[in-house]
Amino acid sequence: MIQVALIGKGNVSHHLQKAFSKTSQVEVVQVVPSRKINHETSFKDSIDIFIIAIRDDAIHAVSQYFKDSKKLILHTSGSISIDALPSRIRRGVFYPLQTFTKEREIDFETVPICVEAEHDKDLELLKELAGSISGSVHEISSGQREKLHLAAVFVNNFTNHMYRIGQEICQKNELDFTMFQPLMLETAKKLETLSPFEAQTGPAKRNDDSTIARQLEQLKVEKHKEIYQLLTESIKTTYGKEL
Amino acid sequence: MIQVALIGKGNVSHHLQKAFSKTSQVEVVQVVPSRKINHETSFKDSIDIFIIAIRDDAIHAVSQYFKDSKKLILHTSGSISIDALPSRIRRGVFYPLQTFTKEREIDFETVPICVEAEHDKDLELLKELAGSISGSVHEISSGQREKLHLAAVFVNNFTNHMYRIGQEICQKNELDFTMFQPLMLETAKKLETLSPFEAQTGPAKRNDDSTIARQLEQLKVEKHKEIYQLLTESIKTTYGKEL
Repeated sequence: MIQVALIGKGNVSHHLQKAFSKTSQVEVVQVVPSRKINHETSFKDSIDIFIIAIRDDAIHAVSQYFKDSKKLILHTSGSISIDALPSRIRRGVFYPLQTFTKEREIDFETVPICVEAEHDKDLELLKELAGSISGSVHEISSGQREKLHLAAVFVNNFTNHMYRIGQEICQKNELDFTMFQPLMLETAKKLETLSPFEAQTGPAKRNDDSTIARQLEQLKVEKHKEIYQLLTESIKTTYGKEL
Repeated sequence: MIQVALIGKGNVSHHLQKAFSKTSQVEVVQVVPSRKINHETSFKDSIDIFIIAIRDDAIHAVSQYFKDSKKLILHTSGSISIDALPSRIRRGVFYPLQTFTKEREIDFETVPICVEAEHDKDLELLKELAGSISGSVHEISSGQREKLHLAAVFVNNFTNHMYRIGQEICQKNELDFTMFQPLMLETAKKLETLSPFEAQTGPAKRNDDSTIARQLEQLKVEKHKEIYQLLTESIKTTYGKEL
């Protein structure tokens, strides 16, 4: 059985702990908040892997406390290189490509876990760890992971901002935003069978300039207008229309 | 039993036909492609409702063929006013708030259907029609529907474009875009329990300017850079950060 210590008590740590509790291949034997880590912190000898699941900008500093460790030391960040961890230790990355909220249950079985390590034996152990909770384990270098994280900003962060603007428009017009729940789900699910290039619909795709002009007029927030205009141009460019 | 004729053979018509086939309250007795409609087209006398499910810009012209009809005449568009239909007839709107693709099955039970009519009796019939396939029927005026459709452009069309940019980044870096499927679904599902304001995460929300600068550098397409910049600014504004 792989014995694991989790450093950090945020969302990722919380969800990993829950996921590992469901497999007999892994046991979480210690969970330590990052602010409690110092040179005096004592860890069980039996631990095979330390997973540092904390804020990106604290990874470098906290990992320094493991610079003499003989164990496998991982971080869980999409945008931080493996090089942020001390050199000359057994280091690696365990990045679950998912968005975590404390209150929401996550089915890890389908969550892609991107792993990276510098030694074959560590990579093997890392794959065993990831494979114990997910059926989707991928070897991804730090360079590729950086691009994956950039794509995730569009797919997750910017998408959520589109939802937010939709909700603001609803609020202003006394419309119930929860009406959009089935549409939001289907927009994502569609891509199980179509590429986003094929799935595009709407006035910009149709080059329907009269609807575009009318909708621009309806937008009252200057930033929303700018976003509408820029994304409309970008969709038109994607489909080769004259601007 | 309500007898219905569908005008048009596109996605919406196809899915409505399928949905009505599952209820005993409604029977689709005729389906006519819009190009076959003219003054000589003969319709069954038994028909209660005509549903014109065609391209937005053809609704006005095609509906003229019904200007002497005594039946209830509906269109299915989100962005077209009820006034596009001939005045002095029994007219109405039946707008399902969903995105339709021929190959994909839609569970109509959860699809919000926005209805509008000018006479109480027509509205009653319209609600019976919508209620036969959906548990989510909403009385929405043309003015409100216009705003709903505007919000849908952000929630559906622009969101899909975010997916598209994510996919382009993946392609260029030999990453498998299907890895994003669980993330896209969870980003939408999250809003069952959180508002999009609460659900926002990412470098812009955190005001993480070093990640923002690094990601901007990684973007090679000028339009993608502009979009990244504008949406980052807009998220910062939403959360009251100085720009």
